[in-house]
Amino acid sequence: LNPVALIAKKRDGGWLTPDEIRAFVSGLLSGEVADYQMSAWLMAAFLNGLDERETLALTDAMLESGKVLDLPSVTKPKVDKHSTGGVGDKISICLAPAAAAAGLAVPMVSGRGLGHTGGTLDKLESIPGYRTDLDVRTFEQIVATVGVSMIGQTSELAPADKRIYALRDVTGTVECIPLIVASILSKKLAEGIDGLVLDVKAGRGAFMKDVRSAKRLAKALVAVGKRAKKRVRAVITDMSSPIGTTIGNALEVREALAVLRGKGPSDTVELTVELGAEMLAAGGLEKSVVEGRKRIRKVLADGTALDVFRKMVEAHGGDPRVVDDDDVLPSAESEVVVESKARGHVRAIDAERLGILSVEMGAGRARAEDAVDPAVGIEIVATLGNRVAVGEPLAKLHVRERTSAEAWISETRSAFSVGRARFTATSRIIERLG
Amino acid sequence: LNPVALIAKKRDGGWLTPDEIRAFVSGLLSGEVADYQMSAWLMAAFLNGLDERETLALTDAMLESGKVLDLPSVTKPKVDKHSTGGVGDKISICLAPAAAAAGLAVPMVSGRGLGHTGGTLDKLESIPGYRTDLDVRTFEQIVATVGVSMIGQTSELAPADKRIYALRDVTGTVECIPLIVASILSKKLAEGIDGLVLDVKAGRGAFMKDVRSAKRLAKALVAVGKRAKKRVRAVITDMSSPIGTTIGNALEVREALAVLRGKGPSDTVELTVELGAEMLAAGGLEKSVVEGRKRIRKVLADGTALDVFRKMVEAHGGDPRVVDDDDVLPSAESEVVVESKARGHVRAIDAERLGILSVEMGAGRARAEDAVDPAVGIEIVATLGNRVAVGEPLAKLHVRERTSAEAWISETRSAFSVGRARFTATSRIIERLG
Repeated sequence: LNPVALIAKKRDGGWLTPDEIRAFVSGLLSGEVADYQMSAWLMAAFLNGLDERETLALTDAMLESGKVLDLPSVTKPKVDKHSTGGVGDKISICLAPAAAAAGLAVPMVSGRGLGHTGGTLDKLESIPGYRTDLDVRTFEQIVATVGVSMIGQTSELAPADKRIYALRDVTGTVECIPLIVASILSKKLAEGIDGLVLDVKAGRGAFMKDVRSAKRLAKALVAVGKRAKKRVRAVITDMSSPIGTTIGNALEVREALAVLRGKGPSDTVELTVELGAEMLAAGGLEKSVVEGRKRIRKVLADGTALDVFRKMVEAHGGDPRVVDDDDVLPSAESEVVVESKARGHVRAIDAERLGILSVEMGAGRARAEDAVDPAVGIEIVATLGNRVAVGEPLAKLHVRERTSAEAWISETRSAFSVGRARFTATSRIIERLG
Repeated sequence: LNPVALIAKKRDGGWLTPDEIRAFVSGLLSGEVADYQMSAWLMAAFLNGLDERETLALTDAMLESGKVLDLPSVTKPKVDKHSTGGVGDKISICLAPAAAAAGLAVPMVSGRGLGHTGGTLDKLESIPGYRTDLDVRTFEQIVATVGVSMIGQTSELAPADKRIYALRDVTGTVECIPLIVASILSKKLAEGIDGLVLDVKAGRGAFMKDVRSAKRLAKALVAVGKRAKKRVRAVITDMSSPIGTTIGNALEVREALAVLRGKGPSDTVELTVELGAEMLAAGGLEKSVVEGRKRIRKVLADGTALDVFRKMVEAHGGDPRVVDDDDVLPSAESEVVVESKARGHVRAIDAERLGILSVEMGAGRARAEDAVDPAVGIEIVATLGNRVAVGEPLAKLHVRERTSAEAWISETRSAFSVGRARFTATSRIIERLG
C-alpha cells in the first residue's frame, strides 16, 4: 500500500481500481493511511470526481469495514427509505411502521439532526423511554418480530464511513455527489436490505438547493445502488416549505401519530403514501405504484400501521401509550402565537429560515455535541394556500420562556410570504427515478 | 478563523486574501488548523493553483512563522544562491566562499540529500569536525566575520515551511509550482538576504525534467521574489548529465576544493563563475555579468576564495587542513574501474541513473532518516565528449567492499552513451531570467 501513489493517481485525474480503493479505505482504519492523506485524497476526489465504479468500490469498502446484517430469520423483503434531510421531515416515523404493516421488513438506521435539518433519532427520543442505541443483535430481533426497528448509527455498521464523514465535515469535502452517494449507500446497504427508496429533497430547506443538482444526486444514487445489485428507486421531492405543520421533535411525533391514525396534514400523508408505495415496489410486493398507494392508505386507515408503531415503541423501551395519548409526549411551557400583519394567501413558507430558527429555539443542534430540547418547536397554523386576515395566526411557537420569543416571532413572520393572489399548494413529488 | 471556509474558498477556485493565508498558516502552528485540513487545502491549491499574490502571502506567512535574520553588523550586500537540486551539484561549496571573497555576505542555509539528488549539508559534513547544526546567533557571527557561513535547516527559520513540507511529502502535493516557490523563498528570505540567485535545473537528473517546466518555476520564483522586494535572478541550467566528475560527498568536496584552487572540471568552474557573476549582479556589486565573471575568476585564481573557505571551515569546527590536503577527507576502502565495452565518444551520461546508483552505494538516502557514507561515490573518468576505446575507463566506483560492486559496474556502464560521431559538450547555461 503506497498512499501517496493513490493520492497522486486521483490528483492526476486517474481512476482507481476497486482493489486500490479497498486498500486505501482499510488502510485508514488500520493506521497505514493517515487522516491527512485521506483528506488530501478526498479533496482530489472532490475536484476530479469519482466514476460509478469507484463510487461503488468506495461504498463496498466502507460497507465491508463493519458488520453487514443478514437477518436470516426475516423472510419478508427488506426495504428501507433514506431522506437527504429536510425541515419538518417526520416521514420516517409514520412511513416505516406503515411499510412494515404493509408487508415489508424495515431495518432503519437513522441519524441525528444537524444544522437546519432535523433528525429522526431526536424525534424518536422525544417518546419517553424510547432507546435508539440498541445493539445490532436486538435491532435484528425487533425487525424479525415487529417488522420494523429504528435505531441510531452504530459503530458496528460501516465504521469507515463514520471516520471519513468526520473528515469530510472539517475539510470542505461534504458537497460532493460521489462521496455523498457512497456515504448514504454504505450505511444503508449495511442494513442488509434488498431494496431502498431515496427521498432526494430539493429546495431552500434541503441540502440540494435546486432540482437539477438533486436530480444529479438521485441519478448517481440509483446507478450505484443498482451496480450494488439492489432495487433502488429515488423520488425527488420539494423541500422549499416545511413538511406538514410542525418543526420540532415531540411536535413532529404528534404529527406522525396523526398520520398513523389516518389523519394528518395532506402533504405529510402524500409523502408517506407515495414513498410507501415506492418501498412496496422496491420490495417487489406490488408491481404498480397505484396498488402500493392503496395498500399504504389502507394500513393507515385501519390502524394496523399504528399497531406496528406501538409494538416498535414497546420493543425499544418506549411508553406505548403514546399512540393513544399525545400527552405522554413532552410539551413546552408556553405557546406564543405569531399573527399575520398582512392579509391574503400564504404563498411560501421559507423552510430553511424556520429550520434555522428551530435550532435557535433549541429543537436542533448547531454542533454535533449540542443537546436538543424535545418539547420546543414551531407549529404552522396557516399552511400553503391558506387565506389569512391581519391579526390571524400564521404559526404558534412552542417555547420554554415567553420572554425569549420576541425576536423569534418576527423571524417566523418573515418566513411567511402572504400575497393577494390565490395560491394552491401542489404535490411535493417532483420526479421519480429508478 | 474558519478553516473549512478557507479550504472551500480555494476548492471553489477562489483567491485567498493575504490575511486569510496568514491566519491559515499560523493556525497550523497554533493547532487551530489540523494537519488534515492543511492537506485538503494543499490539494485544492495543487489542483486550482495559487496566484502570485497568494504565493507571496504564503511565502510571507511561512517566513514570519520563525526568526528572520537581520545581520545588523553586516554592511555588505547579502546574497544567497539556491539550486533546485541535481546530481553531483557541489557548486555551493565553491561558489559561496568565492562570492564572499568577491565582496558579498553569504548566509547560506542548505538541505540534505534526498532521493537521487545530493545535499550540500551531507557534503560539508564529510569534512572532519565541520558542524552544520550551529544556532542562528553563531551563524550570524560567522557571516559577519568570515563573509560566509553554511549551515543546515534550523527550526528557528520558517518552521511553518518545515511542517507544510512534511505534509506535502506524504500527501502527493510536492510537484506544485506555487507551493515550491513559497517553500524555497520562505527559507531563503528568512536569511535576511537582499538578493537571491536561483539555479533552476532542467533535465533527467533534475526535479523538473524539461526546460519548459523549469522555466515556469524560474519565472514564478523571480516574480514572487520581486514582489517580496528582493533582487532575484534565475538561471536555468542543464542537469541531464552529472555536474563535474564526482558524485558522492567527500568526492564532491575534493572537486569543489579543486575549483577553489583555480582548477576543477570545466562545467563545475563554469557554473561557479556564472552563478557567482549573477550573485554579484544581484548584490549590486557589479553592473554587468561580464565584470562579475572576471571578479569570480580572479578570487578563484588568486587563492582568496580558498582562504575564505578555510576560515569558514575553521569557524564551523572543521579541520582547516582540508584546503591543502585532500587526505584529510575520508576515502573509500576500494576503487573499482568501470571499463567501456564500446569505442567512440561519450555523448550522454544519465544523471538520474547515476544519482539513484549513488544512493544505493550509500552516498545518499532513500528516506530522510537514512545515514550517509561520506566516502563512497562515483568518479567520472570519461566526461561528455571524451573519446574512449574498448577497455578504457568510463568511471571509478569508490566503494566499501569490492564484492558488492558487480551490479553497480554494469549499471554505471549503462548510464554512459558512447557513439561513433564526435560530440562536443556545450554550456550548461540554458537561459537567464530576472
